[in-house]
Amino acid sequence: MTNRAGDSGVGRRSSRRSFLARLTVGGGALAAGLAGPARAPAADPPAPADPTRELGQPVRPYGTRSRFETAVRVQARTPTTVAAWTFTPLQDSRGTITPSALHFERHHAGVPDIDPARHRLLIHGLVRRPVVLTLADLERLPAVSRIHMIECSGNGSTEWATPTMPDVQGTHGLTSCSEWTGVLLATLLEEVGVEPAGRWVLAEGGDAAAMTRSLPIDKCRADVLLAYGQNGEALRPEQGYPLRLVVPGWEGNTHVKWLRRLKVGAAPAQTREETAKYTDLLPDGTARQFTFVMEAKSVITFPSGGQRLPGPGRYELRGLAWSGRGAVRTVEVSTDGGRRWQAAELQAPVLPIAHTRFRLPWRWDGRDALLQSRCTDETGYVQPTLAELSAVRGLRSHYHQNAIQSWKVAADGRVSNVHA
Amino acid sequence: MTNRAGDSGVGRRSSRRSFLARLTVGGGALAAGLAGPARAPAADPPAPADPTRELGQPVRPYGTRSRFETAVRVQARTPTTVAAWTFTPLQDSRGTITPSALHFERHHAGVPDIDPARHRLLIHGLVRRPVVLTLADLERLPAVSRIHMIECSGNGSTEWATPTMPDVQGTHGLTSCSEWTGVLLATLLEEVGVEPAGRWVLAEGGDAAAMTRSLPIDKCRADVLLAYGQNGEALRPEQGYPLRLVVPGWEGNTHVKWLRRLKVGAAPAQTREETAKYTDLLPDGTARQFTFVMEAKSVITFPSGGQRLPGPGRYELRGLAWSGRGAVRTVEVSTDGGRRWQAAELQAPVLPIAHTRFRLPWRWDGRDALLQSRCTDETGYVQPTLAELSAVRGLRSHYHQNAIQSWKVAADGRVSNVHA
Repeated sequence: MTNRAGDSGVGRRSSRRSFLARLTVGGGALAAGLAGPARAPAADPPAPADPTRELGQPVRPYGTRSRFETAVRVQARTPTTVAAWTFTPLQDSRGTITPSALHFERHHAGVPDIDPARHRLLIHGLVRRPVVLTLADLERLPAVSRIHMIECSGNGSTEWATPTMPDVQGTHGLTSCSEWTGVLLATLLEEVGVEPAGRWVLAEGGDAAAMTRSLPIDKCRADVLLAYGQNGEALRPEQGYPLRLVVPGWEGNTHVKWLRRLKVGAAPAQTREETAKYTDLLPDGTARQFTFVMEAKSVITFPSGGQRLPGPGRYELRGLAWSGRGAVRTVEVSTDGGRRWQAAELQAPVLPIAHTRFRLPWRWDGRDALLQSRCTDETGYVQPTLAELSAVRGLRSHYHQNAIQSWKVAADGRVSNVHA
Repeated sequence: MTNRAGDSGVGRRSSRRSFLARLTVGGGALAAGLAGPARAPAADPPAPADPTRELGQPVRPYGTRSRFETAVRVQARTPTTVAAWTFTPLQDSRGTITPSALHFERHHAGVPDIDPARHRLLIHGLVRRPVVLTLADLERLPAVSRIHMIECSGNGSTEWATPTMPDVQGTHGLTSCSEWTGVLLATLLEEVGVEPAGRWVLAEGGDAAAMTRSLPIDKCRADVLLAYGQNGEALRPEQGYPLRLVVPGWEGNTHVKWLRRLKVGAAPAQTREETAKYTDLLPDGTARQFTFVMEAKSVITFPSGGQRLPGPGRYELRGLAWSGRGAVRTVEVSTDGGRRWQAAELQAPVLPIAHTRFRLPWRWDGRDALLQSRCTDETGYVQPTLAELSAVRGLRSHYHQNAIQSWKVAADGRVSNVHA
C-alpha cells in the first residue's frame, strides 16, 4: 500500500522555472532529499552507509525485490481469505505491465495446489473428436503471446453512490495487465471439430468452486487464449496455474482459472455466475445478463487519493487507461472538474485491450484542484461521467462501473476521492 | 535449468495429420500424458489428487510462483559468487518479457544493499548547474516507459572456436528483456545545462566495484534512460536498485547499475572497463575500443541443446531475435544447415531493441536435422555465419559474438550444440 519505506514517493521541492532549480550541489539538494516525512524503514540490519565499501550479495537462482520495497496487494473486507479478493497497488505501478506478484486476485474457494504433470483439460460436448489434453500437449501446439489487461467487472463497485475507497488501489485496483502466452482456443476448436449446433462453450475451473462460465462460440473463435505463460514464465498460482482462459476485453470472471474443462453446447449453461451473479440490475428491476465487455475507462494514478503534494510547482500527472473493445485512442485530462480538457501523451506502443500509460505536465498553483481523466477508445466510445452512467444504469447496479474518477487536491496538497 | 518438475516440456505424441489426432477421450490421451520421463517432483506434501475437493490457499499480499516451477538462473563457473554472472533460462521463456526474477546477472563485486531514501545521484563536470538528486526528485520528473532487451557483450563468448555450452541458457542466456520506466537522461542534461566542451558522460555505479563507463553525449541525448522501474515495479536489486542506466542497444556493461554519479567531460575517462576489458582483440593484434552496439542476433529456443524430441511429427520451432540497432525486420529459419530458409512469423508488436518472439511450424521426419535462425534488422544488417564473423574478427575475440547458432537434432530426437 505504501510506495517505498522511508520515501514519500513525490519530490519535496518545486519552482515555477524548473523541476530542479533549487536542487544544487552543497545546498538545498541533500536537504531537500532528507526533508520528507520520517517514514524510515525498520530495516534490520540497516543498509551500509556507503555501499561501495562493502562487498555485495552473491548471484541468485531466482531473484526477489529489495527489502525496502513494500507495495502489496490489499484484501477487501470479506469474512474469509479464500472467498476473497485483493487489489493491485496502482498508485505504485510504473509503466504498463503489472508484476505477476501484484496482479489482482479473485478467488471463490482459494488457490488450488495443482501438480501440472497431473492436470488435464477435457474438451467435449458438441464436438467430433473429444479430447483430454496434458499441459505438454498444449505447449506443443502453435502458440501466441498477447499483452492484455484483465479487469474484474466489480472494479469500482463501491463508488456508485458515494466516494468510498480512500485510494486508487481501492477504487480501481481490480485491473492488471500481463503478457499472456498460450494456445488460441480457435486452434483447439479446429482440432476437435465443433458440430454445427455448437454455439456456446462452458468453461470450468479446477478449483474447489469449480467456477463455470458460458461464452459465445464466436468470441471463442475470435481471440480467446488458453494461457500457460504470464510475463515470460509459467502462470502464477493465483492467476490460474497451470492453465487459464484469457478472454480479451471481457469481464474478469469469464477468464476461468485452473481451467480443466470446455464443453461445447447449443446454449449457455445458466450457471450461478451468469444468473445470480455477474448481471446488472437496472432501474426498472430487470437485470441485464451476459454483459461481457469492459468498456473504456481511465484513472489518474498520480496524484491520487491518500497522497499529498509537497507544494505548488511542476508535476507530471500520470494514469492508466484501457478499453475492452480495442485500443485507447485518446485520454483527456481536466484539472478543474471537467470544464477544460487537455490531451495527455500516450506511452507507445498503444496496444489493444491493454493498460495504456498516459502522462501530462501540470503546474499546480496551490489552490483547490479537481483532477479527472476521460478515455476515448478506437470505436469512438467516450468514458461517461458518473451522472451519465447512473442515468442509464441507476444506482442498484454492482458491476461495470466505468465512470470518470475525480480526485480533489486541497490547498494543503492532500488528495481525496470525491464525486464531482 | 529444468522446464518444470515432472514434465518433459514437449508433447509425447504426434502424427502426420494433426497435433492431437491420437489424443482421444478414454484412449490414448491420458496414457500419452503419463508416458513422459519419470521426473516427478519430490513435492512435499503432494498436491491433492482432486483439487476441487479441497479448499485452496488464501489471498496473499505479494505472490510467488508455483512450487512445481523450477526454472532458474545458472551461474557461470567463476571462483566467487560476487564477481560472477548468471544466465537466463531462455529454454523456459514464454513470450518476450523476461521475469525480473530470472533476468541475467553480472556483478563485479556483488549486489549492494542500498537504502533508496539515502541514495543520491550527483551530476557534475562540464555542466552549468551541478546537482545532487534524490530518488523522489527523479520520480517527479517527466517519465517514459520502454521495452528493451539488455545483452551482455560477453554473450556467446564461449562459442567462438568450438561449441561449448550444452544448452541455449549457456550459449545465449546473457540477454533479457524488460519494460523499463524512468527519466530520459536528455531531460536531466537539459536541466543541468551541458557546457559546449562536454562530449562524454562518465557513469559510475554505487557498488563496491564502483563500475565506470564513458558514453558519448549524443547517445546520452538520444535515448538513454535512468530507470527506477522494471516490469511495473521498482527495479530489482541485482538489476541496479534503486537506479540504473538503460543504454538501448549497447553492450550490457554500459547500462551502469546502482547509478550514483554522472560526470560530463570532454573525452572518455579510459576506465578499466573500456581499456583492459570490453575491447575486441583483432587478428592483427590491435584491439577495437568502444564497440558499443549489440548487432542483430537470434536463436532457436525450442528445440534447443539438451532437449529431446519424443518422435517424428509436427512441432512449432520457437526462438528469440533482437538487434541493438532497432527493430527486427525478418527472421529466417533453416532445418537443413542453411541450404533452404523460410521466413518465421514474428509475434506482434515488433518493438525496436527488444526481444522478438518468432515461430515456425515444422514437421520432423525423424532424420538428422540442423536447425538455424538468421535475423535481419531494420537497417538491412544480416546476422552472419560463424565463418563470416571469424573472417573479420578472428578467433581471439571475446565479446560481440552474434553468429548464427546451429542445433543438431539426431535421429533419436536428442538436440545438441554444433558448429555447422
